[in-house]
Amino acid sequence: MSIRIVGLTGLPEVRPGDDLAALIRSASGPLDAATIVVIAQKVVSKAENAIVDLRTVTPSDLAAAWASQYGKDPRLIELVLCQSRRIVKMDRGVIISETSHGFVAANAGVDQSNVPGEHFATILPADPDESARRIRESVGCAAVIISDTFGRPWREGLVNVAIGVSGLEPLLDLRVTVDRCGRPLQTSTIAIADELAAAAGLVMGKSDGIPVALITGFASKTGEISAKVLARAPEKDLFR
Amino acid sequence: MSIRIVGLTGLPEVRPGDDLAALIRSASGPLDAATIVVIAQKVVSKAENAIVDLRTVTPSDLAAAWASQYGKDPRLIELVLCQSRRIVKMDRGVIISETSHGFVAANAGVDQSNVPGEHFATILPADPDESARRIRESVGCAAVIISDTFGRPWREGLVNVAIGVSGLEPLLDLRVTVDRCGRPLQTSTIAIADELAAAAGLVMGKSDGIPVALITGFASKTGEISAKVLARAPEKDLFR
Repeated sequence: MSIRIVGLTGLPEVRPGDDLAALIRSASGPLDAATIVVIAQKVVSKAENAIVDLRTVTPSDLAAAWASQYGKDPRLIELVLCQSRRIVKMDRGVIISETSHGFVAANAGVDQSNVPGEHFATILPADPDESARRIRESVGCAAVIISDTFGRPWREGLVNVAIGVSGLEPLLDLRVTVDRCGRPLQTSTIAIADELAAAAGLVMGKSDGIPVALITGFASKTGEISAKVLARAPEKDLFR
Repeated sequence: MSIRIVGLTGLPEVRPGDDLAALIRSASGPLDAATIVVIAQKVVSKAENAIVDLRTVTPSDLAAAWASQYGKDPRLIELVLCQSRRIVKMDRGVIISETSHGFVAANAGVDQSNVPGEHFATILPADPDESARRIRESVGCAAVIISDTFGRPWREGLVNVAIGVSGLEPLLDLRVTVDRCGRPLQTSTIAIADELAAAAGLVMGKSDGIPVALITGFASKTGEISAKVLARAPEKDLFR
């Protein structure tokens, strides 16, 4: 198998209301139908106007106290709390929480980087699977992954992961197969959508203005399963 | 940037004492000097004879009790405990521990899959950075990453990550740069070595017998830093 990953150049700055799929089609030209398009959450949020004006946010007492203790903007903290359905960890100035989608992320995915204007922050798209589905239909590619860079416990550095998927199975279940010695493979479910997102992260760069990557040559398993299968169910989560 | 990832075919079954670098050279032919070679831990462990005969292992009381409770092989559990320098979580039949290298992994990286003979299990290479360095020098490529598939809290599925690195900086620090709006990027250190390992995971497949991937077209930052920088320091770890 030979996989090719290319950063899509020539996209304009994405603004609220833009037809992101049309911008991608225009920058990419006709795509091979087997192409997987990986799109950074930031431009999806911008196009969908998932942008909050912090001047409209009234901090709660909790947000105000936390912000004061760690020198943060209390409105931004309030927005993080509002975007969370459960706080996983709140310690040393860091908030890690579960979003409404079920993903666990620092600041619930709220982010001010690459958002013009000091009073604005992006939030995650309301339904990243649906965003992916719409863009896939419009672009006419095999699959679309909406990605974001997440930190991980125990390991330094962020990696790009999938938060929305359309057109491919996010998980590749090898548990029913056997290894090369004939022994059943045990806990071998591979997070294919996350590995694709990570691969795309290599060409994206955070401030390079390359929010879209095109992946060809990877034979993904077609599916309509949501990226939510990547979120571990509470009863299986040892680190809840 | 255009990145290409190819699975290396034609490698024989790797056995203890094999010169893995020579096998890779022979299967790949002359490599572009800019190539990054990603190698699954399993074949490195086999070549280095990091294989334990379970018949030589005497289970401790803890290993025996745990194995009995969850229907596991007590010798395998004992080996997992021996390969751990700290138990992070031991619950519901799952052991997640910190290895001598500082990585946190299920079963401390002990694995029976794709190891011939029912009494044998592989352990992680003693010094994966050094394994990577030796292979890089012999193969003459830009960088070598030794990878393994790790699970993650909160997310389903395994992803391929770096446990040994030679020839490139595992972390790309974007914190000193500014975003496209001129605002300093805050927590933006990207785990490049893990993203490269994940990308390689796409062509490896767990039982396909493709334990080596060749990555070209990625301009990595040259360095001699160990993969251990990917292990989060205790004082920075909120999930210790």
